[in-house]
Amino acid sequence: MHYALIMAGGAGTRLWPVSREHMPKPALRLYSDDSMFQIAVKRLDPLFTPENIFIVAGKDHSHVLAEQVPSIPAGNFIDEPMGRGTAPAIGLAAVHLAAIDPDAVMAVLTADHHIGNEAIFREVIAQAIEAAQSGYLVTLGIKPTWPSPEYGYIEQGERLSEFDGFRAYKAEQFVEKPSSAKAQKMLDLGNYSWNSGMFVWKVSTILEEIRMQMPELHGSLMRIAKALQEGTYEEVLAQEWPEIEKQTIDYGVMENASRVAVIPVDMDWLDVGNWASLKTLLPADKLGNSVRGDVILEDSSCNLVMGGKRLIAGIGLEDLIIVDTPDTLLVCHKDQVGKVRDMVARLKQEGREDLA
Amino acid sequence: MHYALIMAGGAGTRLWPVSREHMPKPALRLYSDDSMFQIAVKRLDPLFTPENIFIVAGKDHSHVLAEQVPSIPAGNFIDEPMGRGTAPAIGLAAVHLAAIDPDAVMAVLTADHHIGNEAIFREVIAQAIEAAQSGYLVTLGIKPTWPSPEYGYIEQGERLSEFDGFRAYKAEQFVEKPSSAKAQKMLDLGNYSWNSGMFVWKVSTILEEIRMQMPELHGSLMRIAKALQEGTYEEVLAQEWPEIEKQTIDYGVMENASRVAVIPVDMDWLDVGNWASLKTLLPADKLGNSVRGDVILEDSSCNLVMGGKRLIAGIGLEDLIIVDTPDTLLVCHKDQVGKVRDMVARLKQEGREDLA
Repeated sequence: MHYALIMAGGAGTRLWPVSREHMPKPALRLYSDDSMFQIAVKRLDPLFTPENIFIVAGKDHSHVLAEQVPSIPAGNFIDEPMGRGTAPAIGLAAVHLAAIDPDAVMAVLTADHHIGNEAIFREVIAQAIEAAQSGYLVTLGIKPTWPSPEYGYIEQGERLSEFDGFRAYKAEQFVEKPSSAKAQKMLDLGNYSWNSGMFVWKVSTILEEIRMQMPELHGSLMRIAKALQEGTYEEVLAQEWPEIEKQTIDYGVMENASRVAVIPVDMDWLDVGNWASLKTLLPADKLGNSVRGDVILEDSSCNLVMGGKRLIAGIGLEDLIIVDTPDTLLVCHKDQVGKVRDMVARLKQEGREDLA
Repeated sequence: MHYALIMAGGAGTRLWPVSREHMPKPALRLYSDDSMFQIAVKRLDPLFTPENIFIVAGKDHSHVLAEQVPSIPAGNFIDEPMGRGTAPAIGLAAVHLAAIDPDAVMAVLTADHHIGNEAIFREVIAQAIEAAQSGYLVTLGIKPTWPSPEYGYIEQGERLSEFDGFRAYKAEQFVEKPSSAKAQKMLDLGNYSWNSGMFVWKVSTILEEIRMQMPELHGSLMRIAKALQEGTYEEVLAQEWPEIEKQTIDYGVMENASRVAVIPVDMDWLDVGNWASLKTLLPADKLGNSVRGDVILEDSSCNLVMGGKRLIAGIGLEDLIIVDTPDTLLVCHKDQVGKVRDMVARLKQEGREDLA
């Protein structure tokens, strides 16, 4: 069987002040009446039934997410006691799925990416499942549209001839967020994809890779797996998890794994990482303003205004992000959205966790 | 006797959203714990006792102002049934003062101007009272510090030799808000002052000028004066006032009056007309930011942030005015503060008087 694992951890501090400690990014309704998490679940239909969709999220976030998608069984929410990065989170989910079905194929999916063409998305996931059944660690590559220095890249090697229904390539190399110059070079070469953070593999394959490359994590996971059988899961998880080292799946496994395939896809994809990227998803008026709520703008262009019930009056504004919440207002120049995260860090440092 | 008349009418829409229909500009605490009205009263001490200070204001505003300055007798608040400009307002006050004291000298003063040097202010008012007793219509001229196109100007003629304790000049000409080029010329010539809107005269002198130049207004005022004696003031005022034509004292009287004197004064004066001019009164940090309330700024310079209880986080902002109130937020570029008034007009037009 194949299963979807939606990664819904992560605070999304770059979308503060709408995202908060207690209200994670996937739960936000940013560009639709549905939350990003609800959208991420809906686009899996009919490839995965709700029973086959699992979610890994912070313990404090699961109930918010579960409420938003009541069709998914409560037992499918896998709680992380605390964030330890994608490698442990994926390992933990793999342990759960292996307990249900040792031959399971798992599609590791995101909840904070916009995918414009969902039919293509499902098609490529189906192809990736086929490749995963042959033992590959499959990554979904996104055809780059500009030389972004904010994404990781994957170099495509030779085409894998065993798949003739679709194009899959040997993944030659993972490239961390590059300089703009290097990004431009990769865009020109044409054989690089953005690393979407979406992967498909057999649980047995990924657990074997973890065993070889992250033996300590593997040891923890095996003790957790045993506890799952013996009915001591909660205690053992609470004991093991804090000791586990933080690591991403890219660093921890993918970069040095042997049988990695990449399937490049063009599906109108966007990492809704910050307010500037969200802006590109929202409809804009003739002057490029995207507004929500009770907003009046005069002599203003290319702004994003996320209002609420209060009136927001803007005069003579350009390239600003204005986000209004009941207890906090953010006004930020579009070129500086990267610093929103620093603002949240500063608030925490100053003991103002209630606003962070 | 001499009396102060503080003109506290006018909505001050350029300081929206803090100023509102029901909360006029003089009542606002903009740059001090005291409101501008309280400051305007305090700086009269000891030249005028509270009993000798009169206020003319809109009917809906008097109670707010009266609450702020309980030392002033309730009977000294002269209510305008509706705004009719400065000429009728001054005429109405003159009628009241004449009923108390036909030889009264009245100093017409403002409540929305900042005066840095209050000792000089009181000194010049005392001089103006002396000139007024000789039958002059005296205007306070402000020594211009830059070629402002936003103020009216007064040309100084020959010095009035009858006053040797101070310098008073014949006012040759009133100039409406000029072009910048014309303003520069007047600044260079050196014999022009800004028209401060502050005047001193005998009530008999101003009423006689109104009789000659604005006979219709004078007729109304005389009927109101008679009613004041006969105990039918409220009814007659309610009847006369709506019929009175709107007019400023400058247009209606000063520009064509014969015995007009100007006393130029340098007393650190500022018309707190809009958010940009208020900004110049407020202390600023090294980067030129003036903030009030719970505000955190990063990479931001030369902004005015008037916050309240909510956190305002600003990142990468320059030359912005941010004014937060419970029901409305204004974000405005400093060069566009003149358009705040248009925003208020637009709200009224759209039937949103509750926010205007």
